[in-house]
Parts: sequence; structure tokens; C-alpha cells
Amino acid sequence: MPIVAFRIDPWSSEAVKEYEKLFKYFGIRPFKEVLPELRKLAEPHLLMRRGIVFGHRDFDRVLEAIKNNKRVAILTGLMPSGRMHFGHKMVIDQLVYYQKLGIDVFVAIADIEAYAVRKKSRKEVIDLALNEYIPNYLALGLDPEKTKIYFQSNHRTPYYRLIQMFSRKVTIAELKAIYGEDLETAKILAALTQAADILHPQLPEFGGYELVLVPVGADQDPHLRLTRDLADRFSNELGLTRPASTYHRFMSGLQGGKMSSSNPESYIALSDPPEFAVKKLMNALTGGRPTAAEQRRLGGEPEKCPVYELNAYHLVHDDSELREIYEKCKEGKLLCGKCKKETAERLKEFLKAHQEKLEQMKELSSKIVPRPRF
Amino acid sequence: MPIVAFRIDPWSSEAVKEYEKLFKYFGIRPFKEVLPELRKLAEPHLLMRRGIVFGHRDFDRVLEAIKNNKRVAILTGLMPSGRMHFGHKMVIDQLVYYQKLGIDVFVAIADIEAYAVRKKSRKEVIDLALNEYIPNYLALGLDPEKTKIYFQSNHRTPYYRLIQMFSRKVTIAELKAIYGEDLETAKILAALTQAADILHPQLPEFGGYELVLVPVGADQDPHLRLTRDLADRFSNELGLTRPASTYHRFMSGLQGGKMSSSNPESYIALSDPPEFAVKKLMNALTGGRPTAAEQRRLGGEPEKCPVYELNAYHLVHDDSELREIYEKCKEGKLLCGKCKKETAERLKEFLKAHQEKLEQMKELSSKIVPRPRF
Repeated sequence: MPIVAFRIDPWSSEAVKEYEKLFKYFGIRPFKEVLPELRKLAEPHLLMRRGIVFGHRDFDRVLEAIKNNKRVAILTGLMPSGRMHFGHKMVIDQLVYYQKLGIDVFVAIADIEAYAVRKKSRKEVIDLALNEYIPNYLALGLDPEKTKIYFQSNHRTPYYRLIQMFSRKVTIAELKAIYGEDLETAKILAALTQAADILHPQLPEFGGYELVLVPVGADQDPHLRLTRDLADRFSNELGLTRPASTYHRFMSGLQGGKMSSSNPESYIALSDPPEFAVKKLMNALTGGRPTAAEQRRLGGEPEKCPVYELNAYHLVHDDSELREIYEKCKEGKLLCGKCKKETAERLKEFLKAHQEKLEQMKELSSKIVPRPRF
Repeated sequence: MPIVAFRIDPWSSEAVKEYEKLFKYFGIRPFKEVLPELRKLAEPHLLMRRGIVFGHRDFDRVLEAIKNNKRVAILTGLMPSGRMHFGHKMVIDQLVYYQKLGIDVFVAIADIEAYAVRKKSRKEVIDLALNEYIPNYLALGLDPEKTKIYFQSNHRTPYYRLIQMFSRKVTIAELKAIYGEDLETAKILAALTQAADILHPQLPEFGGYELVLVPVGADQDPHLRLTRDLADRFSNELGLTRPASTYHRFMSGLQGGKMSSSNPESYIALSDPPEFAVKKLMNALTGGRPTAAEQRRLGGEPEKCPVYELNAYHLVHDDSELREIYEKCKEGKLLCGKCKKETAERLKEFLKAHQEKLEQMKELSSKIVPRPRF
């Protein structure tokens, strides 16, 4: 029996309600519905098996297309800000999984959004992408020869033509409904650019893919809705079709709350020295009880535990091993001290292996992704 | 003595007041101020000698740059809509003049603005540019080997990067002040694109010109003001400098009012068969009096005469010949019938010679300007 979503759900019931809204009001479908069909093609990724990828739009079209040998691309965008951490790793793990299934991977570096909307310096953003994000992506297993990585500011003409053409068929009122009343020039351009990121693999100049899949966090769905509308509006003129998408849960911060690049206490970076990472882990909040005695009596609460999350999302690949941790915790047989120590071993092992690859990938990433001017 | 601006001014005093506002409120300078310096370099073009090019911003910087052997570019944009007529010819005559002085010419085909703002079909716009406008430009004397002609939808990456970067430093409120409260997504992109048209020759990838000159009709100054502001805001980051500009008067329509592509009665197209063109000329409004007797007594009004304009702007190249026409008309010695006949001869001669070149240029224009996709 697979571990189902809500058994290991690390979120408060409030968050779960938010996700349920997505099903109810926005037409996102539960991912578990497509698991049986996916299984016919390949073993689902642990993020899928464990309900961390919880929703989708049109994923059945993706499965259908793969079965019929149609060309499918998968796209992710990266905003270079701060350091790459375990929260970011989730998307890359999915890309690697799909790439192994034969789906071509596009990575858009959102340097223009970082520059124009977030007002970062061009140099800082470009350096961060080439020295921090892309090497980590490659070290996590993306094939440097097969992955199409580009900067938004440094792509080819037909991509920009798409941005220009999109401007004809979306109103400022529609953009305000998505991006808020404080919409600004830069956000408008960023929105059109993001839609072009998602849809441009369908253009003949970029491979003429029949379908593009976009794995995102649940908060990104408004962008997907805009892009779906644009695809509809350009279906006759440019032959575009709606993208498919999947939705994953966010990781909690190590101290509770959100895991965020802007709060170093909340995350472990993939390039943190292992001993330093372990220290952060040891200081992390858990789902434990105030006293050991109480925990032995009542059991722990893995659903509320960032350490359990780290295991479930990243460090424990075997489902029965994870189930054992879960159950022992619930039964009060595995206390937080021991659990953290075991997690620390897994963490160190992962980071050591990852960081060895990372060093090799730093040089490579500057070679395979041309650095934009300015 | 050169024929000065207000002597041959074909506009109502109302229009003159409008132009005077440009001097007073917007800091546009009278072009006649720079004529003496220009004369040291070259004989001014007839449009300049006759006050048809009446205003400028920073033209003194252009003269200074030429004197110091700095690299100067001149740029014009063309919006493919309807047929190319004598009203359009004015700008091209200026480009040809500057090109002979050694200034490099850029021509931006505003196909994206035509598509996204004016909602024309891509195919129609592209065909019109390649079959109608560009062949006429070349037949008017632009050097096909030296002129850099591009479609807004089909340029190179650094041009688009400029558009993206501009989005950071101009607010929607500023754009509304220029383009009106009914600003839409497409107009925002068109405004940023137009600024990139004007400023991109300064980028190293496009020649690294030190200064760009833009000759425009008086109504285009708001675009120039936006572009000057953007140049200032990117002077540190990208080393951009403000463009220089000149302002010319519009031609009147043959039936009075505006000369406009959307009203075929108002213009003579450069590809009109000469006999057809002459018919339009013969039906044109003039500055004549109700009766011949009255005209002999009071003299005609060349200032109000579209036929006189056609001579002054285009058909009579010799200033003393034009002055003779002007004076004989004013003195009641040259009546409209005779004047129209003489003008018809000049018109036929011009159109015949032009249209011979035009045929050769149609093939050439498709060769030198790559046709965009879609």
C-alpha cells in the first residue's frame, strides 16, 4: 500500500483547505487520479507517490501524448535570488524524472523578471544563475547535453516575437486581476514573457513540441491560467495549445512557517557545508512533545515536523523505510533526538555526494549557457 | 536670399500657433538657428531651406558629432498602412540627404505596432512593407547596401533585451500621460519597442553609434520625450545618450484638410499611374480666387494651396524657380489652370522616373530584408 497524501501531510488543516479550494474553484484535479495511468508507463516519482505533487491540469493529455509518441516538453522557470536550497530541489527532481522518461527539458532563467520587477542588478542575477542555480541543477542529475537552458534576456528572436504578439490579446484589466492593482510596466512585460517561456517550445523554431508540461508550486496557478487563456487566443493564429501543469506542496521552514531564500534560518542550502547543515537540522523545530515521557505516551506528530518533511521529500527514497519512521514516530517509539541523528547521517551523505558533483558542474554551466551582455 | 519658412507656410495661422507652442512649451528649437552651421558642412536640403523642417532638439550635437568624426546614425520608423504617398516621401528625402553626408540609416518597420495596436493581420503588414514601402524607399534613393532595414518582430536579441530592461524604469502613469488613459497592453509594448528602435543603434551589437537622429512629424514629439527620459535613466547602466530630432510640417490633403493614407482623395501615391495622378491633381483644391478676374486683381494664395505645396515640397528643386512661381501667383500673373498644367508635367516626369526604379526595387527589397515568420 502506497503512503497516501494526507497520511504524511505536513501542513496544517488551514493549508489543506487552501489546496482543496484549488480543486473546487479552479478546476485543478487531484494528482492521485492519474497515478494508475502513470504507473503503466513508469514508477511514479516519490514526490508523486507521497502526495507532495498533489494536483494537475491536463496531465492525462501528457500521458496520452507520451503513449502516442508525441513530442512533449517540460519547462521550469528559475528566479535567481539567494541560494539554492531543498525547497528548490523538488522541481528539479521532477525534471530529472521526466527527462529520464524521454521528455525534453527547458529551463528559463528569469533574469529579466529579477531585474525589472525585483530590481536586482543584472550582474548579480546572472552570476547567481551561472554559479549557484545551474550547477546545482546539473549536479541533481539534469543532463547538461539534453537540457535547454536560456536566459530570458538572451533567447532567440521568435521567442520575443511571441511576447510582442501576446500584447495584442490580453488587457490591462485581465493582468490586474492576476497581478494586483499595483500592476506596473515591468510586471506586464514579465507576465507576457512568462507566457512565452511556457508556450515557445511549441514554435517550430524551438522544436515544435505538441504539449508543454509545467510543474509548479500551488501559488503559481494564476500564471498558468493566463497562459492557458493566451494559448486559446492564439490557437488559430499560431497553433498553440494549452500547457499541462502539476502542483506541488511547499516545504515548511526549519523553524516552522515558510521556507524562504530570504530567511537563511528557514532552509538548508544545497551548498551548505555538511557540518553547518547538520547544525541547522539539530536546531530545527520538530513534531515532538514537550517531554520525552509525553512523547512516548502520545507519540510524535510527523505531520507537523520539518525534519520528517526533509526525509519524506528528499532523504528517504524507500517508501517502506519512510513508513517505518512515520509509524514509529506516531507510536512514540522513535524520539526526536535519535530521529535527528539518523536524518543528519542521511543529510551529510546526500550533501557530500551532491557537492562533489557541484564542483565539476560550476565550470560546465558557464560553458553550456551563454552569459548575456550587460 | 533663401525662401524663409513663413513665406511659403502652407498652414493656417492656427497650425502655426500649434508649432509655436512646441517652441514655447516643449523646448523644441527653430531649425533656422542651425542652418548657418549646417551650411558649413553641406547645402541644406530643400525641406530645410524652405522651413518645412522647422524645428529640432539637439541638432547642434549632430553637427558637432559629424565635425568631430563621431559615428551618427539616423533612424526612421515606418508603419505599413495603405499606400506610400508624397506625404511619406518627405522623411525618406531627408534620410537620403543624410546618407549622402555619411550618416548611417536605420529603418524600423513597425510591424508589431501595426499588428498589436492597430490590429492588422501579420501577413498584410509584412507584404505591404516588402512590396510597397521598402521598394519606394529604395527608388527614392536610399542605398540598399548601406541601409539597415529591419522588422520590429525580426531583429536581434540585444534589441529585445533593451525593451525588457526599459520596462523597469517607466511607470504606467508616465505612459498614460503620453498615450492617454485608454492605454492598453499592446500600446505599452509598442512604446518600449519604439524607444528601443531609437536607442538600439547605440548598443555595441548594432554599431555603437554615439548619437541617433530621428526626423519626425511634429505630432511625434511625445515619443521622443519618452525616449529622451529613458536614455537619461539608462545613461549610467547602458551608456545611452538622448537622441536628437528634427520636426517637419505635414502636407495638406489635395482637397484641403489632412493628407492621410486612409483617404485616397487626399494623396497621390508614388505608384499611382501618372495619368491617374494628374487627374487627382487637376481636381485638387488651390489657393485661387472664385474668378480669374478676381485672381488677376488680388493675386492667389499659395500659402493655402496644396498644389503649391506639392511643388515646394517635392517637384521644384530650384529655389529661384519656386520663388518665381510664388511671386507670380501672389501678383495674379500665374493662374491656377496654367500652374496645374505645369505642375502636372513635373509630376508625370517625377512619377515616370520613380516608377521605373520602383519595379527594379521590388525584387531587391525582398532580398535585402528577411521576411519574418507567421
